[in-house]
Amino acid sequence: MTLPLYIWPDTAEVRDGRLHIGGCDVVALAHEHSTPLYLIDEATVRGAMRAYVAAFAATGASFRVHYASKALLNTALAQIVAHEGLGLDVISGAELLVARRAGVPLGRVHMHGNAKTGAELERAVAWGVGAIVADSLDEVEHLAALTEGRDHAQGVLLRLAPEIDAHTHAHIATGGSDSKFGLPLAALDTAAARVLAAPGLRLLGLHAHIGSQLFELGDLRATLAVLVDQAARLRARHGVMVEELSPGGGLGVAYTADQAQGGIGAYARALVDALRASCAEHGMAPPRLTVEPGRSIIARAGVALYTIVARKLDGDGAAQYLHIDGGMADNIRPALYGARYTALLADRAAAPAGPPVAVAGRYCESGDVLLREIALPAARPGDTLAVATAGAYTLSMASNYNLVPRPAVLLVSDGRARLIQRRETESDLLARDVGL
Amino acid sequence: MTLPLYIWPDTAEVRDGRLHIGGCDVVALAHEHSTPLYLIDEATVRGAMRAYVAAFAATGASFRVHYASKALLNTALAQIVAHEGLGLDVISGAELLVARRAGVPLGRVHMHGNAKTGAELERAVAWGVGAIVADSLDEVEHLAALTEGRDHAQGVLLRLAPEIDAHTHAHIATGGSDSKFGLPLAALDTAAARVLAAPGLRLLGLHAHIGSQLFELGDLRATLAVLVDQAARLRARHGVMVEELSPGGGLGVAYTADQAQGGIGAYARALVDALRASCAEHGMAPPRLTVEPGRSIIARAGVALYTIVARKLDGDGAAQYLHIDGGMADNIRPALYGARYTALLADRAAAPAGPPVAVAGRYCESGDVLLREIALPAARPGDTLAVATAGAYTLSMASNYNLVPRPAVLLVSDGRARLIQRRETESDLLARDVGL
Repeated sequence: MTLPLYIWPDTAEVRDGRLHIGGCDVVALAHEHSTPLYLIDEATVRGAMRAYVAAFAATGASFRVHYASKALLNTALAQIVAHEGLGLDVISGAELLVARRAGVPLGRVHMHGNAKTGAELERAVAWGVGAIVADSLDEVEHLAALTEGRDHAQGVLLRLAPEIDAHTHAHIATGGSDSKFGLPLAALDTAAARVLAAPGLRLLGLHAHIGSQLFELGDLRATLAVLVDQAARLRARHGVMVEELSPGGGLGVAYTADQAQGGIGAYARALVDALRASCAEHGMAPPRLTVEPGRSIIARAGVALYTIVARKLDGDGAAQYLHIDGGMADNIRPALYGARYTALLADRAAAPAGPPVAVAGRYCESGDVLLREIALPAARPGDTLAVATAGAYTLSMASNYNLVPRPAVLLVSDGRARLIQRRETESDLLARDVGL
Repeated sequence: MTLPLYIWPDTAEVRDGRLHIGGCDVVALAHEHSTPLYLIDEATVRGAMRAYVAAFAATGASFRVHYASKALLNTALAQIVAHEGLGLDVISGAELLVARRAGVPLGRVHMHGNAKTGAELERAVAWGVGAIVADSLDEVEHLAALTEGRDHAQGVLLRLAPEIDAHTHAHIATGGSDSKFGLPLAALDTAAARVLAAPGLRLLGLHAHIGSQLFELGDLRATLAVLVDQAARLRARHGVMVEELSPGGGLGVAYTADQAQGGIGAYARALVDALRASCAEHGMAPPRLTVEPGRSIIARAGVALYTIVARKLDGDGAAQYLHIDGGMADNIRPALYGARYTALLADRAAAPAGPPVAVAGRYCESGDVLLREIALPAARPGDTLAVATAGAYTLSMASNYNLVPRPAVLLVSDGRARLIQRRETESDLLARDVGL
């Protein structure tokens, strides 16, 4: 049986009827570590990181690849980021702490976010992050005051609202003029002047982000054109030449067999070509490109394992729902974005499929249905269900809804499974609960 | 200035321009405890619990009021449940643990859920919960095996899918024939026969749930009619008279001034009238009613406090967004259900409002906008924003998205604020993070 490896991890295979990832029998892992259980395939993560680096290196452009923490971050992943020589985008003080703990060189860290707190900005400056991506005039003022009198100037990227509506889900489209993010183009001059006048700040460049899960490279090309236009304006008005342009967001990922997959090579070429063309128009040397894929590095590397707990039979006795021991608390994407997934019955992955069923999560609301329709071999309570492309925006958004502990995470590679995030315990759940 | 007390807690008032809840100055609490911070007004919680008990008592019917944990549960709330003499609905083993820890008599606990794990069912049986609400034939089989040979029979309610489509959000409508929940009506006989044949089980009654946030009492009346019809069928076919009927779900809550508010008295009368009418048709004595409000007990008692961190100004320099230090990780309802809220600038609650602004959460996606449009007095970074009706389905679904610690919770009463859930720390966030 051949698995579609643009959906499953690079190492996914069926041996003796059972799904294996990273050389590990996933049913054995589910039994040993209990479920819900998330696997991260190390070969797929590192392969995706290397593919980005190789694709941009092939263009000859100056570039940096940053992994976007918000898709999934833990110390092990940040250690892999450091080892592969990537940079890291963080949003919060705790994400920055994980980066430091993992040994990511902090000069390769960008701190993003529309509402960084004072404490977070202080930490970012004190620890010397490579760039703070300033989102508003209020934040620029805050940073100017915070860095006054310091020896080393803090690098700043200004985030623009590029006024481009990307072809993606409204929740994750970030570049329209009514987005909460970024400076309106009309405010760029004021913000740049304030950064340039602040002795503790250094204007490194510009950032814009038009959304996540992008398949239309034209949207990204348009973003780069806006960034280059604005860089040219800064050169003309303020005599400053930016060093870095950072166009977001990330490349789209296929979650089911009928969805497109983004090509990393085409993505790199499109961005570099657009950068060079726009810079040539303005007679500018191309600044360094910083790209920030998150989902496309981690989504396909992740596989979620659940135990089937019960079935709901319809009036004729046919299975209508399979009830699993996880759901919207570990993966809210179906409820939040209408996201679709695919899955295998890991115990009998090559057995013939029966009529379609729905897979319902364990949480107490009807919206908690992980897969609306999937053809699987006849399943029994105790079987293990494996859900593909579960690495991105699942555990990073996980909750304790219904007071259920969050899953463990294993990094699998060459037949070895290493625990990188232990399962939450009831003691963890009660640690903050003081009572009367 | 008068506050609409069907949206704000019973004790909400503006003194010297500042919002007070439970006799406490909320701005002072925000400064002392940091934000995001959730307040629970004890008077409002206890008042709502007593209103339910009084409304059902006034009907003369036999009844029990259960608080539904999934809306919000912690030890302090469970202690209040116990003190007010209510029962408790739980979904998971950890919710049951909180009930026991808080001293809720476990005979007054119902265990719900479509996918209870084996370990959870074992705990529920071992600890003697009043009823396990069985959702499927697989679960009935599991329970029959688990309780074989025990001295005391375990009480069971059978959950039916009543095939009623409630007038509420699709995610929280739970009673349609295609819902993941409950036995199809056609499967009731088989399930009842299995329970009656199991020496360790005792068939206590029937449960159905058609959804949350209900305003149409007709839907609830129809649910009761289905439950009574099925109880009559059980009497005719199996010679068993059930002791208890449990019609869900909960009464609707007004989140904004233009929304309706459910009336507890009308709700109680509608349910009891429908019960009596249906039972009279079948010549049955009315069984005990168990009702399970969650949201309508806790939603309005909760107020979320945030600090305004920055503003996004439009091209003309007018505030377009206020950026706050919380958002979709502590309250996912606007992103998940399109839920609307109202808010006050707690520092200058009585000042004249300016043009409408949006309130954006701090999390790195565009969907994280807590209020799309709200007229507030001109706000500055450092001001405290108070969001009303924040008690239900907010913290219970809270995540660590972007690795941001979850808020503290204070119970406020008579000018005193007690910490009932401490703020999450970075150590908490890293406790499960093992690294390579």
